Amino acid sequence: MPSRRSGPALLAVSMGDPAGVGPEVILKAAAALASRRGSPALVVVGDLGAMREAARRLRGVPAPREWRPGDAPVRSADGLAVLGTGRLGASALKPARPSVEGAEAAYRYIVEGARMAMAGEAGALVTAPINKEWLNRAGHRFPGHSELLAELSRARLWRMMFAGDQLRLALVTVHIGLARVSRALTSQGVFDTIRLLAQHLSGRLGVSRPRVGVLGFNPHAGEQGLFGDEEARVIAPAIRRARRAGIDAQGPLAPDTAFIRPAGKFGFDAAVAMYHDQGLIALKTLEFERAVNVTLGLPFVRTSPDHGTAYDIAGCGVASAASMVAAMEYAWRAVDAGAAPALRSRKARHGKLMR
Amino acid sequence: MPSRRSGPALLAVSMGDPAGVGPEVILKAAAALASRRGSPALVVVGDLGAMREAARRLRGVPAPREWRPGDAPVRSADGLAVLGTGRLGASALKPARPSVEGAEAAYRYIVEGARMAMAGEAGALVTAPINKEWLNRAGHRFPGHSELLAELSRARLWRMMFAGDQLRLALVTVHIGLARVSRALTSQGVFDTIRLLAQHLSGRLGVSRPRVGVLGFNPHAGEQGLFGDEEARVIAPAIRRARRAGIDAQGPLAPDTAFIRPAGKFGFDAAVAMYHDQGLIALKTLEFERAVNVTLGLPFVRTSPDHGTAYDIAGCGVASAASMVAAMEYAWRAVDAGAAPALRSRKARHGKLMR
Repeated sequence: MPSRRSGPALLAVSMGDPAGVGPEVILKAAAALASRRGSPALVVVGDLGAMREAARRLRGVPAPREWRPGDAPVRSADGLAVLGTGRLGASALKPARPSVEGAEAAYRYIVEGARMAMAGEAGALVTAPINKEWLNRAGHRFPGHSELLAELSRARLWRMMFAGDQLRLALVTVHIGLARVSRALTSQGVFDTIRLLAQHLSGRLGVSRPRVGVLGFNPHAGEQGLFGDEEARVIAPAIRRARRAGIDAQGPLAPDTAFIRPAGKFGFDAAVAMYHDQGLIALKTLEFERAVNVTLGLPFVRTSPDHGTAYDIAGCGVASAASMVAAMEYAWRAVDAGAAPALRSRKARHGKLMR
Repeated sequence: MPSRRSGPALLAVSMGDPAGVGPEVILKAAAALASRRGSPALVVVGDLGAMREAARRLRGVPAPREWRPGDAPVRSADGLAVLGTGRLGASALKPARPSVEGAEAAYRYIVEGARMAMAGEAGALVTAPINKEWLNRAGHRFPGHSELLAELSRARLWRMMFAGDQLRLALVTVHIGLARVSRALTSQGVFDTIRLLAQHLSGRLGVSRPRVGVLGFNPHAGEQGLFGDEEARVIAPAIRRARRAGIDAQGPLAPDTAFIRPAGKFGFDAAVAMYHDQGLIALKTLEFERAVNVTLGLPFVRTSPDHGTAYDIAGCGVASAASMVAAMEYAWRAVDAGAAPALRSRKARHGKLMR
């Protein structure tokens, strides 16, 4: 399976909700990345008018150009390319004024971006923010990008992952009430998360034998069953199974001390958290504005910034592009690292995890 | 109610388990504090032989002296004073070798230290680590210091609080399985925690109108009931009640973003967490080795370092005294701040919270 591309990576970037900060943070992030050596070429799947209007408002940012299928391949030196999927009306172009038309367009950008990534036309998909409520009003009932992308790519098994400068982690459960998490946890679900995370680290980030720290569920990881039995009943068996599959999984770790770094480093390359806040309290406390959201288990690399549409500040020019820069950088690195070992056979790469 | 003392504060320090790192970190912390202006006088309630032996091993640390009731008042300039409560046998003096005799003695040190604090002989009690398992073997069935001190002082209502350089927080529930927390949460319990914390901040730390950030329980604080109803059913009513009582309580805050500091600061003076790891993941991630454990609701100030007996390194001289220094500093500050407003009437102080 040789690498599909010869030059630098091409990243598809879905523009997100036109009324949100998406166009603005994409422009800022693209400008920040353009100066880096070997930086990836970017194709924004979105609306040329919206992107140009955002560039005009920002000043100092070059106007994006249109790109159509069949045009010469996009190169990073040529500036930001926009692949249109239909034109937005004037009212849907206004920042801070969400509309059904804009939300419907945002949905189309994701569908087209995912298609490009699945067809190998783009190395990865970076998604700018959408708004769940407006997506629903446009008739698309998905809690967020991950669920939509899983359906589009028919991914049976996927997980949310977050990555910052210091900490990377995947979640076993996500958006359910905390009182329901204990019943939702299964050994299979914990094992799948460990496996997807380890595969991502070795296959996409080039970590040769990733160490995965698996958190417990209860205070002090249950203190030998004194405060709950989820560790013995669910988590420890999943860790044993992962170890038998050749993954260097450790745990169950006491959740409150797992993120202490006595020597400035964690004892693992990435962590598995049992529930939303267990992972995200540590992540957001450490990685404000730098965290990237990654979907594990899709047939392509997908990243996004860790913030929403921020309608309240859209069009003001004040949105921080730090997380979008990080999302693009992460996708760039993952595509590059994934391209190198692709020269080896798929079996050889998986053998690493399965020995 | 004038202040009981005229000079600097006197802190009682219970020596903890003689086989743990207690004697060592007390000596190191006392030496670190001795050079500060106006530093408090310290009385170690413990074993003179154990303290002298620890000082001999550390070198460069002056030998502690014996102090008995009736002796001249302890002054910080005279070096570390030790009030004995019986003498340990040679076998109980060995570091890293816990014994029933040592655990029984550790229990006595706490009882005497609490008595001194309740009698006003000491301004506060700082406790060095004990070991729960050995305390149980000695016949004292308490999960930890807090429960024992609550019983000794007949405190009906108490809470665990943690304080670091950046973050202070109190816990509504502590050592129970996470699956049981939802049922254990009550509006009364949340309100009591807010109230005890606000009283501590104003009465002991001199924060004039403390802002208390109250966390939600579920991801995104339940997202309008989508992921659980603990926010609407339990937490929000407690916050409303606290506000009616004049406390500046805010929330329920989304737990994962509550500890982000966009401008380098939190939007509250202290936080209330619903369960152990919700608070302690953030605290330990931010405050490694600097966190202090504080018991709210006792009739005296009580602090302790945020680590255990660490038998494995006891006697080696390598234990960090950072947390013990912080525990002594916190008690010192709390006693000083508590002494000043004590010149006002009790009613006037409480009026602030109750208006």
